[in-house]
Amino acid sequence: MVTRIQNLLLAPILIVVLVLSSTGAFAQTSTVEKVREYRIQHEYDILNEYLTFLKIPNVASDLPNIKRNANYLVKEFEKRGARMELLTLPDKPDVPPVVYGELKTPGAERTLIIYVHYDGQPADPKNWTHNPWEPTIYSGSMQEGGKPVSLSESNEEVNPDWRIYGRSASDDKAPFPAILHTLDALKQSSIALTSNLKFFFEGEEEAGSPHVRQILEHYKDKFQGDLWLFFDGPKHQSGRPQVVFGVRGVTGMEVTVYGPSRPLHSGHYGGWSPVPGQMLAELLSTMKKESGEILIEGFNENTAPITEADQRAFETLPNYDRQIREDLGLNWTEMEGRSLIESYMFPTLTIRGLESGNTGELARNVIPTKAVASLGIRLAKGNDPERMKDRVEAHIASQGYHIVRQEPNMETRLNNRKVAKITRGGGYPAVRTPIDNPMAQQVVGAIKKATEEEIILYPTFGGSLPLFHFEEVMQTPIVIVPIANHDNNQHAPDENIRIGNIWYGMDIYAEIFTMD
Amino acid sequence: MVTRIQNLLLAPILIVVLVLSSTGAFAQTSTVEKVREYRIQHEYDILNEYLTFLKIPNVASDLPNIKRNANYLVKEFEKRGARMELLTLPDKPDVPPVVYGELKTPGAERTLIIYVHYDGQPADPKNWTHNPWEPTIYSGSMQEGGKPVSLSESNEEVNPDWRIYGRSASDDKAPFPAILHTLDALKQSSIALTSNLKFFFEGEEEAGSPHVRQILEHYKDKFQGDLWLFFDGPKHQSGRPQVVFGVRGVTGMEVTVYGPSRPLHSGHYGGWSPVPGQMLAELLSTMKKESGEILIEGFNENTAPITEADQRAFETLPNYDRQIREDLGLNWTEMEGRSLIESYMFPTLTIRGLESGNTGELARNVIPTKAVASLGIRLAKGNDPERMKDRVEAHIASQGYHIVRQEPNMETRLNNRKVAKITRGGGYPAVRTPIDNPMAQQVVGAIKKATEEEIILYPTFGGSLPLFHFEEVMQTPIVIVPIANHDNNQHAPDENIRIGNIWYGMDIYAEIFTMD
Repeated sequence: MVTRIQNLLLAPILIVVLVLSSTGAFAQTSTVEKVREYRIQHEYDILNEYLTFLKIPNVASDLPNIKRNANYLVKEFEKRGARMELLTLPDKPDVPPVVYGELKTPGAERTLIIYVHYDGQPADPKNWTHNPWEPTIYSGSMQEGGKPVSLSESNEEVNPDWRIYGRSASDDKAPFPAILHTLDALKQSSIALTSNLKFFFEGEEEAGSPHVRQILEHYKDKFQGDLWLFFDGPKHQSGRPQVVFGVRGVTGMEVTVYGPSRPLHSGHYGGWSPVPGQMLAELLSTMKKESGEILIEGFNENTAPITEADQRAFETLPNYDRQIREDLGLNWTEMEGRSLIESYMFPTLTIRGLESGNTGELARNVIPTKAVASLGIRLAKGNDPERMKDRVEAHIASQGYHIVRQEPNMETRLNNRKVAKITRGGGYPAVRTPIDNPMAQQVVGAIKKATEEEIILYPTFGGSLPLFHFEEVMQTPIVIVPIANHDNNQHAPDENIRIGNIWYGMDIYAEIFTMD
Repeated sequence: MVTRIQNLLLAPILIVVLVLSSTGAFAQTSTVEKVREYRIQHEYDILNEYLTFLKIPNVASDLPNIKRNANYLVKEFEKRGARMELLTLPDKPDVPPVVYGELKTPGAERTLIIYVHYDGQPADPKNWTHNPWEPTIYSGSMQEGGKPVSLSESNEEVNPDWRIYGRSASDDKAPFPAILHTLDALKQSSIALTSNLKFFFEGEEEAGSPHVRQILEHYKDKFQGDLWLFFDGPKHQSGRPQVVFGVRGVTGMEVTVYGPSRPLHSGHYGGWSPVPGQMLAELLSTMKKESGEILIEGFNENTAPITEADQRAFETLPNYDRQIREDLGLNWTEMEGRSLIESYMFPTLTIRGLESGNTGELARNVIPTKAVASLGIRLAKGNDPERMKDRVEAHIASQGYHIVRQEPNMETRLNNRKVAKITRGGGYPAVRTPIDNPMAQQVVGAIKKATEEEIILYPTFGGSLPLFHFEEVMQTPIVIVPIANHDNNQHAPDENIRIGNIWYGMDIYAEIFTMD
């Protein structure tokens, strides 16, 4: 959608109309239209300013440069009237600070808290076409034949299909130029915000957010508000606007079962010694059917039910299941009849690793001493990570296993028919805002005003993000509003943002910041 | 047993008696007693001669030295009146030859064919206490505090607990001094052999016997006889005399089952994509129970039944099962109630390897593309290696798998619900002479005359040796008559033979060569 609108806007006659409109010739011009008028007038400036910001290296471990990024944000947001400060924990001053800000709106009763992270993934320049922190504009995706474009030499209109290549161009600096220039555009058009805005810009998200929980707890009073908006992540691969209401949680565990205390000759002992691989296969087959049905008692018991609103969302979502299945060479999928997106509403149990003895060239005629399964567990809303591991453990015990935490000694082996060592991994729960949450629906309504395409309402991502810290500490609903193109090479070399996606960000932010 | 008799013999008074006996003072002196008298007179000579032989390196790939070994055997056996020759295939003259010999006994109607191999495992001198081909005598096992003994400086009687350390001291040169000096002892006592002897001394057994089948086929007429005696391997760990009537066969296969065509993020696809480890666990659990029961149709169908003679043999065998179980930390064993030795009468299915994705530190939140099981199969008498693999394949097909021989392409994946790649290994069948075979029982009777301890009659070893070439080509029964001590470090550094075990060899060979 954004693409088509932008292409239309390139027609000179329309620009004339819109310039007239920005002077007040047409009283009925909408907020998004006014922001577009402003943007068209300032495209080169917006891009040049963004290139300046992208030139500041932003790996969390590079503290001097991280601080330059933080100071840049303080300065730019202060220019727009926000009260900014840098937050670190009192006992840990030398870590990437949270850039915190408040932009009060007189009379507003609602506070939106906007999360963006200004750090990026580490980047090895030798794997990049250009230096990751020398952002370069291309006429399109490099993969699809895009060529470098020089802003200073170009007389062309900015094409929304142009791309900026550089670290964090999309993940996650892209919202910054969009927020800053939306605020400018609204101000120039004398359109007032309707919410108080708070800004929570993290500087170590790609390093695993090691201090975010403590920062939230320590400065909890500052972060009070009505809705967290996470401006992060790519849009749906269809290019359609997307709002995401949750993420799955994650945990995992490893199970080791034991055979003889030393590897045995399979001739001298085969048919007599227990075989750990056989024990493990039998155990795993009691936990889940290959068809996907999980047989562990209570595994699904606390899972939040699928609501009618969720069901409606599924029905409006584009279904690429058949295409994905064919792309992956899959004749069938687990829990047949359940779509990929619907499957995200359930917890999973995945054998991510199996190991016993050797296979292939290294296979030997030996009965191995043990067999190991690494189990990945994804959590749906309502599943507690510890409780889920408890249930798997209880199931293993119910199959006759004595459970230990360390390699069993001879006494333990001899006194118990079957012994399983269980190593429990860490993890965190899912976060999911009900799709019919009224304030979230207001955001959806605002986005609808900025776009003609149907919005994809994603009840939850299948993957996991540690959003639960925010939910647990702040007890405030969260929605994720991505703007980046899905083919942005996020976390990889040649990361990029399609310029039209920054424009899309301005469109929707304008409507969100001024929603009823 | 040997130990106790030898210790008795060290008493000087007994030696006097036996020396008297060797002079004919006692008319009733038995064959074994006469051989012992001879041996006691010649112990130092026998050992010195054996040390000379052990000094000739004997790795099959070292052709010049292998030929020196072969020539040594030709010379020594010709001294005893045998007609010797070196056999190779006409088109492959430069491989370790079979040293073949015939020692005709006028009037004998029975021909025993004696198999020994004169090559040894490769040895890395740096892992040995002494150079593997500089044989060294110790006063006992090194592990139990034995010290070097110099034959030239020693005035002691040779103690049967002394050991010779050196490559092939037990595996498998030990029968040679015993055969040669048994022949000498019988000659000196004017005791006639009662069988024709043929000798089949292989020179590349430890290299996998690459030419033995062709040699057998090419020179089949030479090797006609009534019973093959394999003089190889260690005695039972109890030290008791042992005759072994068979070995299991062996084969194997590898099964790979497939999930998605590329590794998938377990969040984005978990709960939807099939998981190959789960499929494999379910498949394996349909093939065998962890308790040991094999569920594959027909797996056990052609297995030779356990006869009453086998059953009697089991009952007389020492049962160390509990001790072995405790040594291995096993609370239970497969097919509970079935002894280790009894289990050798059945085919096995052992998961010797399992692999899918990663475990431990390397575990990642990924759905792997495949899961692999390496299956070892031991065969009982009656089981055909190819037919057994066919049965496993038929079982896999019956579980809904489409079977392929190569990695499946996308079309194969999409057109079949489940795909299993099966790689079939080679292998060979079991060999087992009925325990009540009359000629084998004559051998057992002869050994009984040479020893006071009860003989262990082993219906079959659990392990595998390619004896089937001999059985298939020659259609002649085979028994294995080991003499080496069980703690001989066979195939390992510091291989050794307990000298009393060579004396045991002379005792039993004397009675076998002169049996009724």
